[in-house]
Amino acid sequence: MAHISLRRRGVLFVLSSPSGAGKSTIARRLLASDDHLRMSVSATTRPPRPGEVDGVDYHFVDLEHFREKVSNHEFLEWAHVFNHRYGSPKQPIDEMLDAGLDVLFDIDWQGAQQLYQTCGGDVVRVFVLPPSMEELEDRLRKRATDSDEVITGRMQRASAEVSHWDGYDYVLINDDIDRCFTDVRHILEAERLKRSRQTGLIGFIRKLTTPGH
Amino acid sequence: MAHISLRRRGVLFVLSSPSGAGKSTIARRLLASDDHLRMSVSATTRPPRPGEVDGVDYHFVDLEHFREKVSNHEFLEWAHVFNHRYGSPKQPIDEMLDAGLDVLFDIDWQGAQQLYQTCGGDVVRVFVLPPSMEELEDRLRKRATDSDEVITGRMQRASAEVSHWDGYDYVLINDDIDRCFTDVRHILEAERLKRSRQTGLIGFIRKLTTPGH
Repeated sequence: MAHISLRRRGVLFVLSSPSGAGKSTIARRLLASDDHLRMSVSATTRPPRPGEVDGVDYHFVDLEHFREKVSNHEFLEWAHVFNHRYGSPKQPIDEMLDAGLDVLFDIDWQGAQQLYQTCGGDVVRVFVLPPSMEELEDRLRKRATDSDEVITGRMQRASAEVSHWDGYDYVLINDDIDRCFTDVRHILEAERLKRSRQTGLIGFIRKLTTPGH
Repeated sequence: MAHISLRRRGVLFVLSSPSGAGKSTIARRLLASDDHLRMSVSATTRPPRPGEVDGVDYHFVDLEHFREKVSNHEFLEWAHVFNHRYGSPKQPIDEMLDAGLDVLFDIDWQGAQQLYQTCGGDVVRVFVLPPSMEELEDRLRKRATDSDEVITGRMQRASAEVSHWDGYDYVLINDDIDRCFTDVRHILEAERLKRSRQTGLIGFIRKLTTPGH
């Protein structure tokens, strides 16, 4: 028998964590393992880092362009982080939701908060914690891509981000990347099954309880 | 590295469905697959059916005994269903929660509603629907344990129960028992990861953000 698949509202799935806590790995594995999930590519005014591709990692825009988008309400959320601005363009997200897909956001607590204010119950906020700050610093050093100064900055920012753990629906400790990934999958799959998202249920129940159907 | 396991509030996990929609199979597999989940054994005034074991399937009690328990507030929820009464004894549930376990309830919508009124956010309510009423009747007939009259009664009750689908947090269609079981597992695992249940998080975050730890 073919599976019964009902129409449902898409999930806006936010994954936040301090840099180095494993978020990027989890996001990559999630996207690779799931046909119904797409990444929201943020726009940013920060310059591309070596290897980053415009339109894939970010949409790189200049400040004037960014401000224009803000005043045209083209972002679902946007934030000012240090010297740069980051925003989630609305139109591609609307298109993904219309196509019955869920959308993955790699944004910080400010973005998560704004998104929740705008989209309420459609938003699911997951925060990934490192097992310890020593472990986090260790991971950052092992990457060997950043200078000591950059790592110190990242560690300070990590502490600040961790303090916003209570603005999330789910909190995970990444002491094992496989287990953490499995946990994030559980959350995504479970959230899809929430009654409140399954807009097709009313019709299905009507059919189920009408004699002769 | 040993997994970091934080203290958390137990989940009161309610599984409801019309008779024949697969609830018992899912409950059995859940309990067998999960070390942290225990069944809440209901008390009932209905007589045991052949093969049912007192204290395992139900606590079989007489009406007077049941009424006494009600007036002593010994039930977390109780309901009058047709000619019989059913209730969830409070004490064993409290003991399971104190031991850090989650508790599985095989109760109907009335019980789910009462439990939610009493225990709020600790309760997770899952409703399992049959793919169609024909399929449900088919499954009941294939059991070959019930008379036509009993089956007709069960079908009427099924329709009534289905009409309470909107009192549940999650609604699943059981058109494939393996998939449905996996979905229920996703829900249980995800609910355990909710920030609001993880009472140990505050301490963990404090440790995490205190220098020198």
